Amino acid sequence: MIKLDNISTVPPKGVNKDDLKVETKKLVKRLGELQHLLYASASHSVLVIFQGMDASGKDGAVRRVFEECTVAGLDLVSFRKPTELDMAHDFLWRVHKVVPEKGTLTIFNRSHYEDILIQRVHRWIDMPRVEKRMKAINAFENLLAFDNNTVIFKFYMHISQEEQEVQLRERLEDPDKFWKHKDADWEERKLWKEYQKAYEYAINESEIPWYICPVDKRWYRDYFIAKTMVEELEKLNLHFPKPTSKMVK
Amino acid sequence: MIKLDNISTVPPKGVNKDDLKVETKKLVKRLGELQHLLYASASHSVLVIFQGMDASGKDGAVRRVFEECTVAGLDLVSFRKPTELDMAHDFLWRVHKVVPEKGTLTIFNRSHYEDILIQRVHRWIDMPRVEKRMKAINAFENLLAFDNNTVIFKFYMHISQEEQEVQLRERLEDPDKFWKHKDADWEERKLWKEYQKAYEYAINESEIPWYICPVDKRWYRDYFIAKTMVEELEKLNLHFPKPTSKMVK
Repeated sequence: MIKLDNISTVPPKGVNKDDLKVETKKLVKRLGELQHLLYASASHSVLVIFQGMDASGKDGAVRRVFEECTVAGLDLVSFRKPTELDMAHDFLWRVHKVVPEKGTLTIFNRSHYEDILIQRVHRWIDMPRVEKRMKAINAFENLLAFDNNTVIFKFYMHISQEEQEVQLRERLEDPDKFWKHKDADWEERKLWKEYQKAYEYAINESEIPWYICPVDKRWYRDYFIAKTMVEELEKLNLHFPKPTSKMVK
Repeated sequence: MIKLDNISTVPPKGVNKDDLKVETKKLVKRLGELQHLLYASASHSVLVIFQGMDASGKDGAVRRVFEECTVAGLDLVSFRKPTELDMAHDFLWRVHKVVPEKGTLTIFNRSHYEDILIQRVHRWIDMPRVEKRMKAINAFENLLAFDNNTVIFKFYMHISQEEQEVQLRERLEDPDKFWKHKDADWEERKLWKEYQKAYEYAINESEIPWYICPVDKRWYRDYFIAKTMVEELEKLNLHFPKPTSKMVK
């Protein structure tokens, strides 16, 4: 059982920012190679889920960590407010449609977890439904894993309340970030404790484990995600398939 | 635990064919009305699954039982051999995409059960995978039920081996049925016992129960399906929504 309060949102003591940036560069490059291997071998698929409070650096992670990947076999799905058609289906319907096919790496910016986070915090659904949905999520993620060799990375973007304020304020002050500002984010911020509770539940009840990523320092966030992914993907021993033509000796 | 051998494939003793045909006509008409109510109220959805051996009367049931339904809010999905894209996903991917939205009645001619029937009988998958898939099917069907008010009817079309031969032979003799003949059906017929075993497993392990429909007499099949559906759908107490305009007194 994790308690988010007990987990640091800043890099561990002793790590050197400049050293880590060099290391991150290498990891991001290697991740690009691994994604190409994934595409060529088409034996596995990869699903990366980013969840976290507003301004916790999800968009930045998508831009930085995957910059050496190519669009062939790479997808990004940003889950926004469900459409009317989404709402006329079970909550996993719009999600299942867009899971990665073999050979593909798909990034979810937000995900099906919103259906037990924002919906729970605002009491649009009651707790028995949260529990049923959590069970359905576990069955769904297990299905992807056992029936389509999907490797699932779930990153909780762990930001402190103070750093969130800094980040949200930048959106009011930096002209390049105005477009990200929403008054509603400041409203959601008031529900911090409720969100933390909902996240803890989702993380603790998940059968496929989460990675808690300290994001107060964005350079550490990128290192953490790239390192986690490269380490796990190396274990798959991906390789270019053998030639299928007799013309190749 | 059901054993298919112990269940009759013919109508129960004492039922009168002519009486039942009159009754079926009424039920089919009422089903049409209920489908219109379903569409208008848009609070529930209905999924009807037909599974059974070749020539067990799935196509006929689709034509006869729903003839008073209209195409608005009515869908038919016939599951054939998975495509290459289907195969690059988990087995429920192609199914989840086409489940009914609220207000809709969707008929599956064959279904996700094929993935633990034909695939098991031909040993394209091993038993541990059959068990995992069965668990995934239960989670999936429960999800539709609790999160989208989907009423699920699963009809196992229970035909005798003798009647199947009669039906398959007609396809070789009746010019109107030539188009339905496939040599492969005679090959599959040789695996009768294996299929019965696989069906029994699917039926017994299902959390949402099956209806075992005796189909040797097609007139009884139609009565059985229409009666089952009408009885269950009446329980929903569907009604036309109240007016939303102030202009209606």
